[in-house]
Amino acid sequence: MNERYERGLARQREMGGATAARARVYDTLADIAPDLQRFAVEFAYGDVHARSGLDMGSRELVILGVLIGLGGVEPQLEAHITTALNAGVPPTGVIEAIIQALPYAGFPRVLSAMTIARRVFADRKLLPLNN
Amino acid sequence: MNERYERGLARQREMGGATAARARVYDTLADIAPDLQRFAVEFAYGDVHARSGLDMGSRELVILGVLIGLGGVEPQLEAHITTALNAGVPPTGVIEAIIQALPYAGFPRVLSAMTIARRVFADRKLLPLNN
Amino acid sequence: MNERYERGLARQREMGGATAARARVYDTLADIAPDLQRFAVEFAYGDVHARSGLDMGSRELVILGVLIGLGGVEPQLEAHITTALNAGVPPTGVIEAIIQALPYAGFPRVLSAMTIARRVFADRKLLPLNN
Amino acid sequence: MNERYERGLARQREMGGATAARARVYDTLADIAPDLQRFAVEFAYGDVHARSGLDMGSRELVILGVLIGLGGVEPQLEAHITTALNAGVPPTGVIEAIIQALPYAGFPRVLSAMTIARRVFADRKLLPLNN
Amino acid sequence: MNERYERGLARQREMGGATAARARVYDTLADIAPDLQRFAVEFAYGDVHARSGLDMGSRELVILGVLIGLGGVEPQLEAHITTALNAGVPPTGVIEAIIQALPYAGFPRVLSAMTIARRVFADRKLLPLNN
Amino acid sequence: MNERYERGLARQREMGGATAARARVYDTLADIAPDLQRFAVEFAYGDVHARSGLDMGSRELVILGVLIGLGGVEPQLEAHITTALNAGVPPTGVIEAIIQALPYAGFPRVLSAMTIARRVFADRKLLPLNN
Repeated sequence: MNERYERGLARQREMGGATAARARVYDTLADIAPDLQRFAVEFAYGDVHARSGLDMGSRELVILGVLIGLGGVEPQLEAHITTALNAGVPPTGVIEAIIQALPYAGFPRVLSAMTIARRVFADRKLLPLNN
Repeated sequence: MNERYERGLARQREMGGATAARARVYDTLADIAPDLQRFAVEFAYGDVHARSGLDMGSRELVILGVLIGLGGVEPQLEAHITTALNAGVPPTGVIEAIIQALPYAGFPRVLSAMTIARRVFADRKLLPLNN
Repeated sequence: MNERYERGLARQREMGGATAARARVYDTLADIAPDLQRFAVEFAYGDVHARSGLDMGSRELVILGVLIGLGGVEPQLEAHITTALNAGVPPTGVIEAIIQALPYAGFPRVLSAMTIARRVFADRKLLPLNN
Repeated sequence: MNERYERGLARQREMGGATAARARVYDTLADIAPDLQRFAVEFAYGDVHARSGLDMGSRELVILGVLIGLGGVEPQLEAHITTALNAGVPPTGVIEAIIQALPYAGFPRVLSAMTIARRVFADRKLLPLNN
Repeated sequence: MNERYERGLARQREMGGATAARARVYDTLADIAPDLQRFAVEFAYGDVHARSGLDMGSRELVILGVLIGLGGVEPQLEAHITTALNAGVPPTGVIEAIIQALPYAGFPRVLSAMTIARRVFADRKLLPLNN
Repeated sequence: MNERYERGLARQREMGGATAARARVYDTLADIAPDLQRFAVEFAYGDVHARSGLDMGSRELVILGVLIGLGGVEPQLEAHITTALNAGVPPTGVIEAIIQALPYAGFPRVLSAMTIARRVFADRKLLPLNN
């Protein structure tokens, strides 16, 4: 196992491990494209996410923004809403981040993201929110 | 002047005022669509940006993510890289936010955003970065 | 209740009320992000849709175009195909609007939108179309 | 010259001829991809735009919506704002169509489209708008 | 039946016939928008796909790239992964094409496409891949 | 210099070196985000492009498709049209690849890509095409 892979794994562990949603996707693809999982750990986590200069939670806020802007990427939104919570962003912070996308990405993308956030919160028994 | 407009203006002032790039766009459109400027202040700033629950800098990180994910929105990227700096995100934080989009939005959108960031930094005499 | 909210509600009522699809989304989100529903009524309907200068049906045609161009926004397409019918656009007008997107947005987005239109028509007992 | 091409040309003539902006693009490409111009006339205009069931101006409103939703297609926005005017949509109708995209496509795409609209209006000596 | 339609049908037959997924979509839409199926055969296959200058498999690789770049077009990805196999692209070629999109379109779109590819491979009893 | 970087550089050399357009972008960014250039060589070229299972030219056709589907990424389209030619795709193959995107990505994105292709061909004295 190389240094980048180790650093990526360590970073994922720091954020509560790969999410279940994410693990399921990569497990399914392991027999036809095993390198995708390796690239995700080495590049997305080892090379990029583990960089210094921006804390873990802030990185997840940027990622939420990117995913809302892209559209049509529901499984990744689910995974990163989970990761954002794991990285210490409170549920209300996730909600505010999604609302903040409204003037730039419009209602359709924001409603879709918020619906996913609600499902993640419900799965994690975070509802009702007490803030 | 209504309460939402006032709150929006106050928020913009808190972030160093509307950026020059942004002011130029709205000034140009004032004779055919003056309500766009009003909607931006009232809705984007008064209703959304001025909400509690997420600090100003974090909101700008989300917006940078959304804009990189959308693509093709260079003038707004320029405006919000400026606003992010005004909101207290250090230049290296802006750079890291843009790099963090790489695994999700790909090289083309990230290179385009970083090129704009460099121009904003140069205009503000922030180069070379000493960190 | 403020003036913008009232104007937005009146506009929605004029178009046959909020669609069932739309109501379901906002109801689901009412416990975590109630302001989204308020923003939709105040801003999307009160500030924007209720403006003069373009009739209700034409506004829905523009919205259908935007949603097809965006892609990945099926629930909103369903809601606005319904609203277009409520605003007086005949089913064939909706079909023609979707076909008109073909040279600009390509077959995938148009096929996806037409499939949703057919489902809305079937739900409203509009099939077979007799024109 | 085949029937579809003739029908497409007739349709373009009905809308005041191919716009200058559009003609320039196709002329430039005539030596490497002459079929693109033919496909545009035959398919986009002869097969699609010339269909019955939706009037010319309404078709242009749908197209404006699609182009704003797509983003990054400035030359076509310029061409179709011109065509919309030629098809009888008044300048204020074009402005309202672009504003109507705001809740769905967000400020960046709308500001970009409105800036192009203003340039088209200025080129055609339509400013100041008297309505 | 016109020449373009015949040429399009011939092209589809050469690629193993319209895929089941694609046929299902067009059959469903036959009562409200029969011209969409005709346009697909005449324009997408007769005018464009049947052109010389690039072989059938290479055309499908381009299409896979476009669909991954667009995002949110799962049914078409499924149809064209099937068509790519029919056109002689080996399963590993399809996998490599999808992986090649990674640096440009990012992980979310690539994971989504690969998940669809795996399903197509499984449906066609191509798993495990022996290469 | 690590093995992935070397493999990426070798791959770029095999394709005629980094293009001038691409070099210019990375040179400009070298003082604020030098890792972007390293990631491009290591990841985009060393990890992905240099893989076996699909030849160099086919990989560039996929990339052209992705870039046309994404939209708003002109500098990268210019770089990869150049790289496609370097990888042995003839100019007519590039033209056909771009036309093949028409039914899926629509006229605006295809016209924009073809305009860039023409400029690249002109810069390389490939016009008039004799085929």
